[in-house]
Amino acid sequence: MGLVEDKLKNLGIKLAPPKPPVANYLGTKQVGDLLYVSARVSQLTGTVGKDVTEEEAKKAAHATMILLLSIIKKDIVDLDKIADVAKLQGFIRSSDKFTRQPQVLDGASELLIELFGENGKHARTATGVNQLPYGATIQLDMILQLK
Amino acid sequence: MGLVEDKLKNLGIKLAPPKPPVANYLGTKQVGDLLYVSARVSQLTGTVGKDVTEEEAKKAAHATMILLLSIIKKDIVDLDKIADVAKLQGFIRSSDKFTRQPQVLDGASELLIELFGENGKHARTATGVNQLPYGATIQLDMILQLK
Amino acid sequence: MGLVEDKLKNLGIKLAPPKPPVANYLGTKQVGDLLYVSARVSQLTGTVGKDVTEEEAKKAAHATMILLLSIIKKDIVDLDKIADVAKLQGFIRSSDKFTRQPQVLDGASELLIELFGENGKHARTATGVNQLPYGATIQLDMILQLK
Repeated sequence: MGLVEDKLKNLGIKLAPPKPPVANYLGTKQVGDLLYVSARVSQLTGTVGKDVTEEEAKKAAHATMILLLSIIKKDIVDLDKIADVAKLQGFIRSSDKFTRQPQVLDGASELLIELFGENGKHARTATGVNQLPYGATIQLDMILQLK
Repeated sequence: MGLVEDKLKNLGIKLAPPKPPVANYLGTKQVGDLLYVSARVSQLTGTVGKDVTEEEAKKAAHATMILLLSIIKKDIVDLDKIADVAKLQGFIRSSDKFTRQPQVLDGASELLIELFGENGKHARTATGVNQLPYGATIQLDMILQLK
Repeated sequence: MGLVEDKLKNLGIKLAPPKPPVANYLGTKQVGDLLYVSARVSQLTGTVGKDVTEEEAKKAAHATMILLLSIIKKDIVDLDKIADVAKLQGFIRSSDKFTRQPQVLDGASELLIELFGENGKHARTATGVNQLPYGATIQLDMILQLK
């Protein structure tokens, strides 16, 4: 078991085999040493500031990052191959009043830093949108650099 | 005529010379072997789930990808120079109820796979938004790797 | 003082030391020779087409690009290290009626071209959204290539 998976285990996080993409795309695509990770959405549905609280949305961002890691593991097998997290993009389904998208996305960013330390620190974009696939609350995609 | 243009011809698709960007940007920008393709919008306007059906939006995604290919051809001349499709990002103008953005974006993804085979398979993000330039239904951007 | 900072000075633009990120992310992240610049939002708040005019939003896009340049300077010290602007992504908080996101984003693009000339020309995505962090009008992120 690799170092990153050790840390996941210590955090009590288990990576389940991911469901295949719901449409015609890949979970991840490697180009040179960059790994482009397709967007996946949270199981949690609803709109932050309306049906969903900030705290619930932050937890859903954390859970969606675990889903992304499951997909990455399926494709690259060993998570220790990840050299650096370049960019995280998060879309948060938001009411017209909700403006704390950065605090929600921290649920995902904090896990990356716990797992990958300095290399897990990343550039980021947290944006509000009115709707997401399947009515989800959170959608995350990512760009990694592999060793 | 290149292999990809042969396939386009067999699919009955003709690449027309694209209109120049409406504002102060490039159609594509190459950096190293990556080609960043600027977002372009569909000719079809309206909101999916309100004025536009899922089927119409999927066709518009297909048509917008043809537009992107026209722009790429203008810049790199020979589409056979495309080694890999890294990432496709699609924004779909969606009513607050419409949640099948991935099925809409398949209209673009399927064409990439028809034209480029395994190398055309890509990472992807399909997101709903409330408004797009010129009231368009679909907006696509892309990252390619060139040979 | 470098060439780019000379041009900034001639334009009467002063880069102030940026505030640290409001959440758990970096201002920029370098991976290979690519610099991923985190999204930052405008000080101007409100929705274009409702509380904010197109002209005000364009000015806010210009001001947000100055903020991004301050952050980049803090991280890479010398702005002359920038070889190329690859991609600019702009989210514009838009009413359901406002469709001139490209014209708004020109406020940022034009500054890049003034400062970096041919190398400042870039691929771009300008998208409307219903809400942004802190109720901001403009959100910009960027990918640069460093020398």
